[in-house]
Amino acid sequence: MAALKLRRDTARANPNLAPFSRVNLVLFEPAELDRPLPRGDRRAVHLVEVLRRGVGDTFDAGLVNGPRGQGTVTALTAAALTLSFAWGPPPTPRPALGLIVGLPRPQTARDILRDATTLGATALHFVRTEKADPGYAQSTLWSAGAWRRHVLAGAEQAFDPAIPDVTFTHSLAEILDALPAPTVTRLALDNYEGATALGDFHVIRENPVVFAIGAERGWSAAERGALRAHGFALVHLGARVLRTESAVTAALAIVCAKLGLM
Amino acid sequence: MAALKLRRDTARANPNLAPFSRVNLVLFEPAELDRPLPRGDRRAVHLVEVLRRGVGDTFDAGLVNGPRGQGTVTALTAAALTLSFAWGPPPTPRPALGLIVGLPRPQTARDILRDATTLGATALHFVRTEKADPGYAQSTLWSAGAWRRHVLAGAEQAFDPAIPDVTFTHSLAEILDALPAPTVTRLALDNYEGATALGDFHVIRENPVVFAIGAERGWSAAERGALRAHGFALVHLGARVLRTESAVTAALAIVCAKLGLM
Repeated sequence: MAALKLRRDTARANPNLAPFSRVNLVLFEPAELDRPLPRGDRRAVHLVEVLRRGVGDTFDAGLVNGPRGQGTVTALTAAALTLSFAWGPPPTPRPALGLIVGLPRPQTARDILRDATTLGATALHFVRTEKADPGYAQSTLWSAGAWRRHVLAGAEQAFDPAIPDVTFTHSLAEILDALPAPTVTRLALDNYEGATALGDFHVIRENPVVFAIGAERGWSAAERGALRAHGFALVHLGARVLRTESAVTAALAIVCAKLGLM
Repeated sequence: MAALKLRRDTARANPNLAPFSRVNLVLFEPAELDRPLPRGDRRAVHLVEVLRRGVGDTFDAGLVNGPRGQGTVTALTAAALTLSFAWGPPPTPRPALGLIVGLPRPQTARDILRDATTLGATALHFVRTEKADPGYAQSTLWSAGAWRRHVLAGAEQAFDPAIPDVTFTHSLAEILDALPAPTVTRLALDNYEGATALGDFHVIRENPVVFAIGAERGWSAAERGALRAHGFALVHLGARVLRTESAVTAALAIVCAKLGLM
């Protein structure tokens, strides 16, 4: 409780800064607000067993793609928690930061879903590429909808209820054709043919950004051509070979720093 | 084999760039070079079962803190592999990039050992801080030397045999007192009192950098004072709350971008 209080007080002093913490924001979907939360739900377990909340206690709550606010435990039985909520002001729109990733192995995809959400990605497109293993698309991560859990975990970690749009059934070509405005800053990581280090690339702060990264084995020649034809600049991340999930975090961090967000 | 060949050919075309790959550099300690590699060793398993190497086949090898080169399987029995090596030129020194981390839980420390090594950290100091759980120091990660395995994995991933100096028995104060030159760029992540975003901090490319990051619960007031007294600028990583391991990767990436390395 002391640590939580400290966090809140300091957050008030400077609302743009929040310290490190383990998951303290608890997220709810709009449809869940008017029904009890089963005790077996991971959030109920977290509230009762980790945060030690009982009847009358409050906690930091968020509405998915809505405001943050305060939840209150109004009843607690062996079967369920009953909660009430007081929501804060509507969230301000986030800077558009899209990520296109060649479909990676499921464990890598789980980390990217969580960490790219935490870092503030507004869209995550996992795409079929020529060098990606098509078997990865069969994972229950995608077919059973398990991906959403990792996105929510990333948003809770960030202390921001906004989650990215996520797609995972398209080819790279389909996503490239569907990209919105032509003025977007378009960057593709390519350690073979990228001529500029990402860190040396000038990013205009006001423009939406989309960043593309291949699967483990990178882009095919045809995909490089398609990326270039759609206005993507090929950039690299230096001489060291990163894991795909580290490359995503590193690239998003560098882009966020250029956008003034980090 | 095709993917490996492609990687090597392209690496020749531009020796500063290397594509994504799973562990293909196999590292050896100097003392291991003149004895057979037991078949149960993880590198033997990797060479035979993943890379499918047999007698006469070659592979990318590295000598810890020494050169890269080519290994050759010269004999293969049920008990061991016999290897020979042809080493390349001695490595060029790496830019000094130190990391100080409040001792985190072991799972977080494992990720940081691997990923900070991959990103090119030259020193990793895990330190006791007022808000870090002292129990974390009892982990076999430290007491049994398991930490080294994660560092080696990070170096193999980076395709660079150089590994950082690692310490994990000192307090923050001891490490601060032992820092070498006064001209080093000294940065500490502090989402409470950091006044400047890391991305907006000007880093002089030629200077060694040391970056300090607290454990989950951050720095105490006394630690902030000690950091400031030792010339550390307090910086933040924006409004979003990152996992400690993501904050390390993000911060090192932003610093590396400023140093022209990424």
